[in-house]
Amino acid sequence: MRGSLGFMLFQLDRESRVPLHEQVRAQVALHIDQGNLRPGSRLPPTRRLAGSLGINRSTVCRAYQDLWAQGYLEARPGAYSTVRARLRTTTNKASLRPSCLAFERLSAPAPRRLFSQVGRMAHLAAMADDLRLVNFASLAADRELCPSEELQRAFRKVITMRGKTVFDYGHPAGYRPLRESIAVNLRVHGVAVTADEILVTNGSQHGFDLLLRLFARPGAAVAMEAPTYSLAIMSCRQQSIPIAAVAMRADGMDLAALEGHLRSRAIAFVYTMPNFQNPTGITTSQVHRERLLGLCEAHGVPLVEDGFEEELKYFGHAVLPIKSMDNKGVVIYLGTFSKVVFPGLRVGWIAAPPDCIERLVAISRVCWLSGNVLTQAAVSRFCDSGAFEEHVRRVHRTYRPRMRALLDGLDDRMPKERVTWSRPQGGYALFMQVHPRGKMSEEVAMERIRAAGVLVSPGSLYFPSPPKQVCFRLSIANLSPEKIAEGCRRLGKALKGMV
Amino acid sequence: MRGSLGFMLFQLDRESRVPLHEQVRAQVALHIDQGNLRPGSRLPPTRRLAGSLGINRSTVCRAYQDLWAQGYLEARPGAYSTVRARLRTTTNKASLRPSCLAFERLSAPAPRRLFSQVGRMAHLAAMADDLRLVNFASLAADRELCPSEELQRAFRKVITMRGKTVFDYGHPAGYRPLRESIAVNLRVHGVAVTADEILVTNGSQHGFDLLLRLFARPGAAVAMEAPTYSLAIMSCRQQSIPIAAVAMRADGMDLAALEGHLRSRAIAFVYTMPNFQNPTGITTSQVHRERLLGLCEAHGVPLVEDGFEEELKYFGHAVLPIKSMDNKGVVIYLGTFSKVVFPGLRVGWIAAPPDCIERLVAISRVCWLSGNVLTQAAVSRFCDSGAFEEHVRRVHRTYRPRMRALLDGLDDRMPKERVTWSRPQGGYALFMQVHPRGKMSEEVAMERIRAAGVLVSPGSLYFPSPPKQVCFRLSIANLSPEKIAEGCRRLGKALKGMV
Repeated sequence: MRGSLGFMLFQLDRESRVPLHEQVRAQVALHIDQGNLRPGSRLPPTRRLAGSLGINRSTVCRAYQDLWAQGYLEARPGAYSTVRARLRTTTNKASLRPSCLAFERLSAPAPRRLFSQVGRMAHLAAMADDLRLVNFASLAADRELCPSEELQRAFRKVITMRGKTVFDYGHPAGYRPLRESIAVNLRVHGVAVTADEILVTNGSQHGFDLLLRLFARPGAAVAMEAPTYSLAIMSCRQQSIPIAAVAMRADGMDLAALEGHLRSRAIAFVYTMPNFQNPTGITTSQVHRERLLGLCEAHGVPLVEDGFEEELKYFGHAVLPIKSMDNKGVVIYLGTFSKVVFPGLRVGWIAAPPDCIERLVAISRVCWLSGNVLTQAAVSRFCDSGAFEEHVRRVHRTYRPRMRALLDGLDDRMPKERVTWSRPQGGYALFMQVHPRGKMSEEVAMERIRAAGVLVSPGSLYFPSPPKQVCFRLSIANLSPEKIAEGCRRLGKALKGMV
Repeated sequence: MRGSLGFMLFQLDRESRVPLHEQVRAQVALHIDQGNLRPGSRLPPTRRLAGSLGINRSTVCRAYQDLWAQGYLEARPGAYSTVRARLRTTTNKASLRPSCLAFERLSAPAPRRLFSQVGRMAHLAAMADDLRLVNFASLAADRELCPSEELQRAFRKVITMRGKTVFDYGHPAGYRPLRESIAVNLRVHGVAVTADEILVTNGSQHGFDLLLRLFARPGAAVAMEAPTYSLAIMSCRQQSIPIAAVAMRADGMDLAALEGHLRSRAIAFVYTMPNFQNPTGITTSQVHRERLLGLCEAHGVPLVEDGFEEELKYFGHAVLPIKSMDNKGVVIYLGTFSKVVFPGLRVGWIAAPPDCIERLVAISRVCWLSGNVLTQAAVSRFCDSGAFEEHVRRVHRTYRPRMRALLDGLDDRMPKERVTWSRPQGGYALFMQVHPRGKMSEEVAMERIRAAGVLVSPGSLYFPSPPKQVCFRLSIANLSPEKIAEGCRRLGKALKGMV
C-alpha cells in the first residue's frame, strides 16, 4: 500500500506488527526530522490523507494526535495540521546514552564514598563465579536446602484462600498473622512479646536502616563490635553516622571500652550479635550478656541485638537471646528468615517496645508504605504449618557436619604456630587470624590464597577502620564436607608457604 | 506423675502439649525464683532426678541445659548443677511492657516531627472505615479491579517453572526479565531505554527515597511543586532535606520561580508530576515540558519525573513523558505498578542514565540488599503475557466514567461562584479550592463536609508550608459513578451552607 502527501511518499504495510497509525506517524515524523516538512507548513486534512492512503480516517487522527503529543504539530483546538518548530526531538534509539550530568559531583559525599566500596564487594562477588575455587566467602544460605516445595504450597494456598486482599496495600507494620507467628516463634527462644511489639521488615538490613533513621540524632554515634557485619558499617557510612568501635575479645565486645564510649559521647544505640557473631563466630556468655544489658540500661541507650542466625546452634549449650532478659524494654531485636530459609523473599522483623515500634512504623510508612502482603501471608502460613520448624531441623542436620568438617580440616591442615581461628558453636562462619613472621598485606595474602584455589572473605571488610592484623572470614554456607576438607588442604598449603 | 527434689514437689503431665523437659525446667526455675533454691545450692544429678520422676535422663539434661542458658545455673564443663546468683530473670509474661527508655528524646529530630504528622494521616485513614461516608479521600486503586486471577496464574507459573531460584537473593537492580519488560513498556510511551537503565524498586516511594539518599548533598534543596505528593514532602522532612517550593499554576509549576531557585541556591533535583499531578490533576503542555527540561539541562540538575499514573489517560490527546525527549540523560523517571495494578506487591522502578542507576544500585544494596525475586518474576510474567495491557484497558473502561461522573456532578451541584476545581484528563484525583466570603479554616471546613457525609483529603497535606486558601483533593479511586453523584450532592449542599 502506497500513497503520497504532496511530494512525500508513504509506504504502509498491513501485514506488519506495527499498527498503521504508528506507520503513518513515524513517516510524517521522519519527513519533519529530515526537513522535508518545515515549521509552519500544513499537513493535509485527516479525511483527505485517509482517502489517498486507503485507510480509516480515525487511523490518521490517531497518528496526528501522537505527532502533536510528541511536539511535531501545533496544538490548535480541532486542528493539528501545522508543523511546529520543535525545541527538541524525541529519542528513538534504544541505546545506552551517557548523561550530560556529572553524577559524581551531584552525589552526596557519603554515597559517593560508598560507591567505590560497593564496587570492591561486587568484584569479590564476581570471583565467586570461578567454580574451580573452593568458595569460603559466601554467607548466603545453601540454595539446595531451600524448602521450595513447602514454600510453593504456602504461596498457592494463600493466593487461593485470601484472594484479592494479598495484592492490596498492607499495614506498614506488616501482615498481622505473620507478626503473630513471629511472636510465637520468639517465645520458643524465651522472648515473651506480643504481635504489637513486632514490625515486619524487608530483611534485617532494612531493619537496621530503619533504626539508624530513628535513632541517629546529630552527633550521636552507633557503638558496634569491631569486627562486625560489613553492611552495618556501610549503612552508617552511607548516612554519615559516626561509629564508636568496640574491640571484640574472645568472649565478646570489650565492655570496659563500651562503657568508656557511653560515658564520653552520645550513643544512638549499641549494636551486637551475641550468637555466632559475624564475622568472628563468637557466642557470648550469659554473664557477658547480663553486663552488656546492664550497661545499656544504666545509660538509657537502646541495645540492638542482631539474632540473624538464632536458629543455627549446632554445638554446646543453648543460649537465649538477650531480649529474653529484657524486663525494662531496652533491647531491640533484629530477626530474619533470610539466613535459614529464603533470602530472596526478604522477610525479617524488629521486636521492640510498643512505643519504639510505633515510631519505626511511622518512618516505614514514609519510606516504603508497606511490605509485600502476599509474601508475608505465605511466610506466615509456612511458619504456622510447622514447615519452618521442620526446615530448621533439616538445616541443622546439614550444617553441623559442615562446621565439624571445617574445624577438623583446620586442625589437620593449618600451620598452628602462625594461624589462629575461632571455634563457633553455630552459624556459618569462623574467623581466622594470620600471624606472619615478617610483614604481609591482606591483599597479597588474599591473592596467594586465591592462587591456591580458595576464596575467603577479607577481614578488612568487617572493621570500621583498617585492621593491623591479617584475617579472613571462612563460611561453610555453600560447601559440602568434602569440598570443605579440600579447601582446608589448599588453604593450609597456601598459608604454610606464606607465614 | 509426681516426684520430689529434696523438699520440692514436681508435677509432670504427660498429656500436656508442653514438653516434659520444659515442665521440669519451668518448675525448677520457679523454685529458684521463689527462693526455695538459693544461689550455691546443688541440683541432684540428672540420672537421679530422672529416676525419681520416672522420665528419660536426656529430658532432665535438656531442662538443665535450658536453665543454664537462662542463667539459672553455674556453667561448669560437664556439670550444671549449682544454682547461680542471677543478675536478672528472664521475662515470662507475654504482655506489653513499657520501656524505661525515653524514645521521644532518643529519636532524631526529623523523625520526631514526622511522628506527629503520620499520626494525623493515620487518623484520617481511620475515618475511612465509616461506610456511611462517601470516601473521596483514598487514592488507592480499587481492590475490585485487581486482576487477581491473572496474577495468581503468573505466581503459580513462576513458582512451578523457576523453582528454587525465586527464593534466592536477587540482584539489587532487580530481576533482569522484569527490567526488560519495563523497558519494553516504556517504549510504548516513547521512552527508549534498555534494561540496564532500569532499577526495580519497592514502589515509587522507595524510589524517591533512594534519590534523596543519592542526591541530597548538604545544603542542597529539592525543588518541588506546591502542592505536591504529601509523602514526597514527608520524605524530605524525615531526612531534614530543605524544600524549594515552586507554586503550581493552571499549566504546571511556575517556571520563572523554578529558575529563580536554580540561580540562587543548590538544588539536589527538581521533582515533577507532569501528568494528572497529585493533588491538582493538572497535565502540563508540551511547551511547558520542553521549557522545564531545558531549564534542568541548562543548570545541570536532574529532573525527576514521577509517572505514577502514566497509564491512566482518559480524555484529550496523548502526551508523552518528558523522559521521551531526554536526549541528554537529565531525566530520572519514577514508575510504579501500584496505582494501576497491585499496590500490595510493591513494585515500581526508576529509569535513569546508566551511571545514575549504578549509584542507586550501590545505595540499594546497602539499604535492603535486594527486592523480592518471586514477586518480580511473577510481575514480569504478568506483563509479558499481555495481561498488563489488557488490565490497563479494563481500568480505563472503569475510571473514565467515574471521572466523567465527578466532573458532571460538580458542574451540577457546586456553588460555582465560590468554588473552583481542576479538570483532569486522567488519573484519580482533582483539586478543589474554596473561596469563602468570610474567614474559614480548613479544619472547620473538613468537619462540616464530614458532617454532611463526605470524606475529602485536606489540601494542607500537600503543601510544604501551610497554604492560605482552603482546598481539598477529591479522588474517584474507590467509588462507583452512583456513589460519586451522591457525594457531589452532599458536598454541594455542605459547601453552599458554608461559603
